[in-house]
Amino acid sequence: MRAYDIIHKKRDAKKLNDQEIEFLIRGYTKGEIPDYQMSAWAMAVFFQGMDKEETAKLTEEMANSGDNIDLSSIKGIKVDKHSTGGVGDTTTLVLAPLVAACGAPVAKMSGRGLGHTGGTIDKLESIEGFSTALAMDKFIDSVNQNKVAIAGQTGNLAPADKKLYALRDVTATVDSIPLIASSIMSKKIASGADAIVLDVKTGNGAFMKSYDGAVDLAKTMVQIGKEVGRNTIAVVSDMDQPLGWAVGNALEVEEAIQTLKGEGPYDLTELCLTLGTQMLLLSEVVDSEEEARERLERAINDGSALEKLKELISNQGGDPSVVDNPNLLPQAQSKFEVKAKTAGYVQRIEAESVGISAMLLGAGRETKESEIDLAVGLELSKKVGDKVEVGEVLATLYYNDDQKLKEAEDKLLSAYHIGSEQLEMNPLIYEIIS
Amino acid sequence: MRAYDIIHKKRDAKKLNDQEIEFLIRGYTKGEIPDYQMSAWAMAVFFQGMDKEETAKLTEEMANSGDNIDLSSIKGIKVDKHSTGGVGDTTTLVLAPLVAACGAPVAKMSGRGLGHTGGTIDKLESIEGFSTALAMDKFIDSVNQNKVAIAGQTGNLAPADKKLYALRDVTATVDSIPLIASSIMSKKIASGADAIVLDVKTGNGAFMKSYDGAVDLAKTMVQIGKEVGRNTIAVVSDMDQPLGWAVGNALEVEEAIQTLKGEGPYDLTELCLTLGTQMLLLSEVVDSEEEARERLERAINDGSALEKLKELISNQGGDPSVVDNPNLLPQAQSKFEVKAKTAGYVQRIEAESVGISAMLLGAGRETKESEIDLAVGLELSKKVGDKVEVGEVLATLYYNDDQKLKEAEDKLLSAYHIGSEQLEMNPLIYEIIS
Repeated sequence: MRAYDIIHKKRDAKKLNDQEIEFLIRGYTKGEIPDYQMSAWAMAVFFQGMDKEETAKLTEEMANSGDNIDLSSIKGIKVDKHSTGGVGDTTTLVLAPLVAACGAPVAKMSGRGLGHTGGTIDKLESIEGFSTALAMDKFIDSVNQNKVAIAGQTGNLAPADKKLYALRDVTATVDSIPLIASSIMSKKIASGADAIVLDVKTGNGAFMKSYDGAVDLAKTMVQIGKEVGRNTIAVVSDMDQPLGWAVGNALEVEEAIQTLKGEGPYDLTELCLTLGTQMLLLSEVVDSEEEARERLERAINDGSALEKLKELISNQGGDPSVVDNPNLLPQAQSKFEVKAKTAGYVQRIEAESVGISAMLLGAGRETKESEIDLAVGLELSKKVGDKVEVGEVLATLYYNDDQKLKEAEDKLLSAYHIGSEQLEMNPLIYEIIS
Repeated sequence: MRAYDIIHKKRDAKKLNDQEIEFLIRGYTKGEIPDYQMSAWAMAVFFQGMDKEETAKLTEEMANSGDNIDLSSIKGIKVDKHSTGGVGDTTTLVLAPLVAACGAPVAKMSGRGLGHTGGTIDKLESIEGFSTALAMDKFIDSVNQNKVAIAGQTGNLAPADKKLYALRDVTATVDSIPLIASSIMSKKIASGADAIVLDVKTGNGAFMKSYDGAVDLAKTMVQIGKEVGRNTIAVVSDMDQPLGWAVGNALEVEEAIQTLKGEGPYDLTELCLTLGTQMLLLSEVVDSEEEARERLERAINDGSALEKLKELISNQGGDPSVVDNPNLLPQAQSKFEVKAKTAGYVQRIEAESVGISAMLLGAGRETKESEIDLAVGLELSKKVGDKVEVGEVLATLYYNDDQKLKEAEDKLLSAYHIGSEQLEMNPLIYEIIS
């Protein structure tokens, strides 16, 4: 078998068989197939696509290219959740304790982020003492005891995906649905989840900006799940404006706490209830959507979700008193109120510009080496549909360094589209695909 | 400027500007742009194509990536000829002395071949003493004195093309008209030709098997010539059956001599007259096609073309007596007659199978390291349209080693399609594009 023939076949829109995909991915992982053949193949896939069997096989091969985490000693069905990224996405911080409080085991592995804010691991580190560097046995014990643990990704997970993604990133071959889908799913599968709930975001703040693209990606990932025997459900949700109010690390932890108290923003709360419902269903601790939703709402209302968060924090070395006293989280020295210059209704908030504004304040990483300031970020006071008067506060910027404050303010102002009409809002949840 | 953006632009079917193509080719030649980006770009070009300006700019950049041979000290307009390859293609050996005998300067640089037989340089080396290792000043002097010289390609001609072609060859990105056209034309331009006559072959023995592909390639190359200011004409000719009778190195030299005597095969003679006509027109030693054709025929009939071949041979150290006594050329020890097993008319001869038969006898190179046997090869006795009786000789195989003789015979027999009807023949010349 030769890599040349595999590239040629895909170029000519022919279906690759299992042996060919295996040869390609194993050869590439071992360094026997060079980058220049792999990038030509990826470009051929960009143009010709892959069908469901090819995509599933690619996913399996990438998942099997490194360690496969064995979570079988955790009792129950382990459901993992993955969001495709966005601005102000605090869902993991809310869902992990919330779903665990309802009785489903949550063995969550998370990463740091390159983006407008840090990843879940960065956010959690704004809680003093909290450690995500858990050894595997301690991680598993924690889930068995407390139903929930969150660990930083370690080990050699899907190295083929890591290598291929880095190559795609420099050869303009990222934007291919089967390649994106297999990349995401290979890591979830290698992480040992029994079932997977996907939160696929669409809109200008999302990785997939177009609705059709998001639905296509969601369907492809659900299909991969079917093919490889991991029950998968995808929720297509809106990311045309930021989710919730807060964008920043400690600020999002605080927002998660509010949400678990039942005092969070409507959209974040609603999305967490939707995703949580699917997680409970897949973990088979409930029988119906109604029951799931009721259990989740009860866990918020009776304080058990908040209690679970405290347990999680204290079990991983953190100070649980932040939950009752969020002022213990890192606080920025200064704040600045961005005020409306025109009156009317908020018609649109460009999520990406809001994210960039937070990044300018120091909340995110531009490169892997960038330092994050966990205290800084912003909070939106007005969201789409809200009425605004001239001089009213649109958002508050929290900062320690005023060097880019003006730029952040301008970026935030440019994100707001204010007009005389109150436009119809996008739905928050577009579709649930299973 | 970043290679990434150039790949992305081409991927999305956008036109690259001059600066981008320059950046790409210069960066690649210097090793600043890695193979993996270049192969992704080539695959994007495979799918999205390039327009005439992009293709011309690419050609110019590749031509300028190394040495540019300066033939300006040769008097007259130097017309180069290039054939896109085929089986039994002896046109250069005929045309160089023939066109020179008509007064046009022929400064021909040729290569060795990877294929069914050697290249022009290999063929000429079957003449004892003949050397193509000419220093540039000697080469130029020879053309000024004798109107003709043939030298092996030396120096650093179009290294960008060499590097890119080698990459395309292993990434399934060869089959792209703008990339093929720019590859051929960049070498011709760097070789210093003022004008170019292209012999673009089509049919199963050709590089471009489809007629539409051949015409497209021809038009693209003529267009490049226009854009870069080198007058270019392309002749689209048939390579569905081998050209002439002989396939082999010394055997083709002998056939060229016969053709220059006016005793050659019809198709080889006719194609040389057609190509020679275009060469004389471009070199402006004649005013019309009629005059060109008349001059060429006269040079054959009055012996001046044959005389020119003798001059060429003796000027480059060879023994010109081979022209009168072809038995001085290397002779194979044995021959074998392949006889028809069925009667009827020859309806088709698969040129590629005939070429492989000659290669099995040792006439060509499978890899760069293969040794060629200059004496071996084959001669066809029957061509398309001929009537055949059972037991009549179809072809004669000339060999020194009988190890693969049976295989060569089978391959040759499989090339002949004999049926009861005499089918209409393909035209030899399909189209002249200028």
